Amino acid sequence: MSATKVVVALGGNALQEAGSPATAEAQLEVVRKTVEYLAELSCRGFELAVVHGNGPQVGRIVLATEAAANITPAMPFDVCGAMSQGYIGYHIQQALRFALKKRNRNVPVVSIVTQVVVDKDDPAFSHPTKPIGPFYTEEEAKRIADEKGYTMKEDSGRGWRRVVASPQPKKIVEFSCLKELWDTTIAVVAGGGGIPVIEKEDGSLEGVAAVIDKDLAAERVAEEIGADVLMILTEVEKVAINFRKPDHKDLENITVAEAEKYMAEGHFAPGSMLPKVQAAVMFAKANPGKKAIITSLFKAVEALEGRTGTVITAE
Amino acid sequence: MSATKVVVALGGNALQEAGSPATAEAQLEVVRKTVEYLAELSCRGFELAVVHGNGPQVGRIVLATEAAANITPAMPFDVCGAMSQGYIGYHIQQALRFALKKRNRNVPVVSIVTQVVVDKDDPAFSHPTKPIGPFYTEEEAKRIADEKGYTMKEDSGRGWRRVVASPQPKKIVEFSCLKELWDTTIAVVAGGGGIPVIEKEDGSLEGVAAVIDKDLAAERVAEEIGADVLMILTEVEKVAINFRKPDHKDLENITVAEAEKYMAEGHFAPGSMLPKVQAAVMFAKANPGKKAIITSLFKAVEALEGRTGTVITAE
Repeated sequence: MSATKVVVALGGNALQEAGSPATAEAQLEVVRKTVEYLAELSCRGFELAVVHGNGPQVGRIVLATEAAANITPAMPFDVCGAMSQGYIGYHIQQALRFALKKRNRNVPVVSIVTQVVVDKDDPAFSHPTKPIGPFYTEEEAKRIADEKGYTMKEDSGRGWRRVVASPQPKKIVEFSCLKELWDTTIAVVAGGGGIPVIEKEDGSLEGVAAVIDKDLAAERVAEEIGADVLMILTEVEKVAINFRKPDHKDLENITVAEAEKYMAEGHFAPGSMLPKVQAAVMFAKANPGKKAIITSLFKAVEALEGRTGTVITAE
Repeated sequence: MSATKVVVALGGNALQEAGSPATAEAQLEVVRKTVEYLAELSCRGFELAVVHGNGPQVGRIVLATEAAANITPAMPFDVCGAMSQGYIGYHIQQALRFALKKRNRNVPVVSIVTQVVVDKDDPAFSHPTKPIGPFYTEEEAKRIADEKGYTMKEDSGRGWRRVVASPQPKKIVEFSCLKELWDTTIAVVAGGGGIPVIEKEDGSLEGVAAVIDKDLAAERVAEEIGADVLMILTEVEKVAINFRKPDHKDLENITVAEAEKYMAEGHFAPGSMLPKVQAAVMFAKANPGKKAIITSLFKAVEALEGRTGTVITAE
């Protein structure tokens, strides 16, 4: 029997501790702990590909590049995304390589700069919702909106920010490379959900200012590659309904139909648990007999061995 | 007969036009022209791996991150290098993919975040020579030197700058991935000479503030991968002795021994043509029967077909 192939989506807590400084050194420290869990999975024979988020990191790259715009040109958002893939991928590959080496496991790890195609007519583009980069005053925000054509919105009383679309991922551009590496190498792919690009009429690709949800991108990776499991790692061991209410209930094995019912009932927070459940449902629905798991980083091994987590299957 | 395998090292002019603005948009425009030549090579059946420089780009990333340090933490130099690999690699893979597609050639292109091991005892570390990042006043420079332990030097009357070491590349960490992709994929690797890392006693890798010469890194890639040709692309069609003097003489086919004689006679400018000739000599010396070529981007095809360029061979 060939090894179980798992696409792992790492949540923000896998890269940054709440309240810790946003330095590269602090990130590397957290990454070093995170990769211990990934190395364990590899040692148990699971074949991995790793997708990670980049929200805080790309936000800070945008912040730095905009703040320094008077001395060196600010970089467009797609380039900031590519930079964040380099930054985070470098830390993961360096740390994971060592975590494996300590376990006498010689599996190469590499990060692949990844573009992900989105539909230029995705309705998300007419309703941008994802705030990125620095805060501005209302006046500054209006000037920027006029000058650059950005959409600016007031963000929870903290000031004005640029908002970009969060379109659906359609296709992993560097898919063939991922496929080639899959059997031998742990690839870090589609970092931050991938660099969003649209396909133009002449067949060329063009970067756009958008943020693809990293769990949906991981779902795309898992489907395209034919993974056995999509595993979404987050802060909780199990998904819950009536979250933190008296009738709070952790979910263990659920079907797509049940998950869809809970979604419709509004149990999961948009921008938080909802996209994870959506991604899991999408994978389970398209792959009868395979499974999606949502659990915490710390429970990844147990969950893959069937001992915890929320498991979503077609039936 | 299997295809000729070529490692191409792209010079600064392949990414940025002299005097043009240092924007991402301007870079992408230049990259789109550059990749036309690479696509031509691919169409003629050459199998490529691409190494690029990152001097101006990483300099600006350092500049931006240091300038914005009061609002978001400055990134260490190794991370800035990783970011530049993401930035430049993204542009190359996006543009080259389309240049190939236009030619109905379906070869995937991908950039690999690449670490390159350097020796922690490399003598370059005691004599850092490579200026990076912003200019400071003497007073600021001394404060920074005290605070951060950086080596600061006066740079040609323009102010004080941080200088870092330029150590020799010893080993491409992500070699196995490169090897795996080699036959099917054009990989962009060791961008900017690679992210310099040292091997610690426990076997872990640690990023260091250093700049590896990209031509020497390309030589390492070519040797490790067993390439047939190391092709270093620069601004001139042929290397010359007595450069721009009345007895200026372009070199066509030369042996390692001749090249070494010319180097000893001081014909090649350090930091410019000298490291290119050094890298070419290193490759030709270690690979009798194979060749290193130094030529311009615009003559890459003709040079690989044996019609121009400076060709360096063992004998």
